Amino acid sequence: MVKTVRFDGEHLIILDQSKLPGEISFETCRTVEDVAEAIIRLKVRGAPLIGVTASYGLALGMIKYEGSEQERDNYFQVIKNILASTRPTAVNLFWALQRMEDVYKQSTNLSNPELGQLLMAEAEQMFTDDIRINEAIGEYGQELLHKGSRVMTICNAGALATCGYGTALGVIRSAFKRGKIEQVWACETRPVLQGSRLTVWELLQDRIPVTLITDSMAGYTMKLGKVDAVITGADRIAANGDTANKIGTYTLAVLARQHNIPFYVAAPLSTIDREIATGDLIPIEERQAEEVRQIFGINATVPEVSVFNPAFDITPHELIDGIITERGIIKPPYLNQL
Amino acid sequence: MVKTVRFDGEHLIILDQSKLPGEISFETCRTVEDVAEAIIRLKVRGAPLIGVTASYGLALGMIKYEGSEQERDNYFQVIKNILASTRPTAVNLFWALQRMEDVYKQSTNLSNPELGQLLMAEAEQMFTDDIRINEAIGEYGQELLHKGSRVMTICNAGALATCGYGTALGVIRSAFKRGKIEQVWACETRPVLQGSRLTVWELLQDRIPVTLITDSMAGYTMKLGKVDAVITGADRIAANGDTANKIGTYTLAVLARQHNIPFYVAAPLSTIDREIATGDLIPIEERQAEEVRQIFGINATVPEVSVFNPAFDITPHELIDGIITERGIIKPPYLNQL
Repeated sequence: MVKTVRFDGEHLIILDQSKLPGEISFETCRTVEDVAEAIIRLKVRGAPLIGVTASYGLALGMIKYEGSEQERDNYFQVIKNILASTRPTAVNLFWALQRMEDVYKQSTNLSNPELGQLLMAEAEQMFTDDIRINEAIGEYGQELLHKGSRVMTICNAGALATCGYGTALGVIRSAFKRGKIEQVWACETRPVLQGSRLTVWELLQDRIPVTLITDSMAGYTMKLGKVDAVITGADRIAANGDTANKIGTYTLAVLARQHNIPFYVAAPLSTIDREIATGDLIPIEERQAEEVRQIFGINATVPEVSVFNPAFDITPHELIDGIITERGIIKPPYLNQL
Repeated sequence: MVKTVRFDGEHLIILDQSKLPGEISFETCRTVEDVAEAIIRLKVRGAPLIGVTASYGLALGMIKYEGSEQERDNYFQVIKNILASTRPTAVNLFWALQRMEDVYKQSTNLSNPELGQLLMAEAEQMFTDDIRINEAIGEYGQELLHKGSRVMTICNAGALATCGYGTALGVIRSAFKRGKIEQVWACETRPVLQGSRLTVWELLQDRIPVTLITDSMAGYTMKLGKVDAVITGADRIAANGDTANKIGTYTLAVLARQHNIPFYVAAPLSTIDREIATGDLIPIEERQAEEVRQIFGINATVPEVSVFNPAFDITPHELIDGIITERGIIKPPYLNQL
């Protein structure tokens, strides 16, 4: 699997996921603004990867900083805010930037170059940690699946959404290694098609059996008895277990409950936002109407039609049968355990 | 509103709905095979319209028939079978062809030209009847809606799916005339996008307020309290009320029940198939994988990925709060009333 983000000693090299699977194309980010733009335009996406990429961006900015040490704190805040304002929902972004700020604040005695190197080392550490975290999530999560499992997922919570291995797809990978996966149902995930573009591509690279459906087919596929579990990633988990994830996740959770199919969320602990009591308080990003009006740049409808385009929805904790983390599986009730 | 199908005295002129809304283009069908092809390729679609168009096709074939009267019965069966084999799910197709056959069988004493004219007159009658039926459906159905209603629908059960006015959209039209419609939520309806391409176009032509969402956004939109009713069309209704309709309808019905939103089906009585006891027995058409793999001819995924592409699903009668017909609204239990 290609690396989703890396520092080449001078620039940040990111895999441009907006061009997959047709084109495996890398983009060179030379400035903090380049990194922010890549996140806004979904060239880099997936809650864990957004967090690590923003950390790399912050480190990149500080490595290139040549101003005075008096102005340095101010500059750090400016570029941190640029990165923090890219996307509102995934909490990993704010968690990662906070972790970088903690390192920064403990090291203000260092010179510019030393500080830049230290922050880059921290970003590299987060990258390595993320892979190990995903492997642990996969290891715990696979225990929930039996031999012959047919697992439905939405969006891409895979190696492409992380630094490698994946969260929901990490669980599927670990289960597949043990011969437990008979079929993955990938929902195409309109409007940005992360399911058809990314999840299908990623799973076929690992020869994991996958069948693509439109989001509208999930209910009927469950009703036909073809689904044993639903596993998704998460962009933010509130203290009570309510989970923000890709739009359409809530519908899958309602459908899973209707068909007595277990519904699991796989996410690192950094996705849990203990400061937010319930899902109602999680900010939901609304993206531009063109994502719905057009597909691959072609008008799918009357160009002036009104559009509602929330990028995420909230799945209430009552519909979640388990949250799979790197420390183990949390079962309801979530409140005191999270 | 443009005419979806008409006989110009020589050929059948159909609106090619596969090109909407970008292009208002008419296709000339010169033969029965042309008509069958137009139905298979979704240039003509929508259960009521499929039935009437097939009847026109049958009449067209008999008008052009120049063989012997001995061979005529055989020819009639051949072209009837060509038309009947175009699509398996919508029962209006078989109902309409049966009605044509009944007329044919009562008139075998006529000459070829007389018989052709008689059958064409019957097709024209079905066209006129269909509009009146839809207006009656709209009239009855609007009583279910209160002022300020926000109604969700899927696919296109509108003027474009019928000979005019529409079934589900007929109800919306009648309610809109009475100032009851605040908002229509149109689900885009992957894979063929009848929602974004047809329903949005049709409603905006009548200046009925419509907002487009992807199918994956229906659950969240309901959860936000933005939907007062769901109304869909139907392709076949079993004797117990189980309803086949566009893939994704079942998911909407489950979601509607979860949110205590009434779910209605609007359809002419010709959509009811009393010979089929339950929805499990309704044949569900599976269409080609390319409809999911490609959008507007562009690859959306790895071209060789496995695809499941059912064109319809079954909504069990328990989830349907009313079936709106031209004779009134049928409320559960449906069994003895249908």
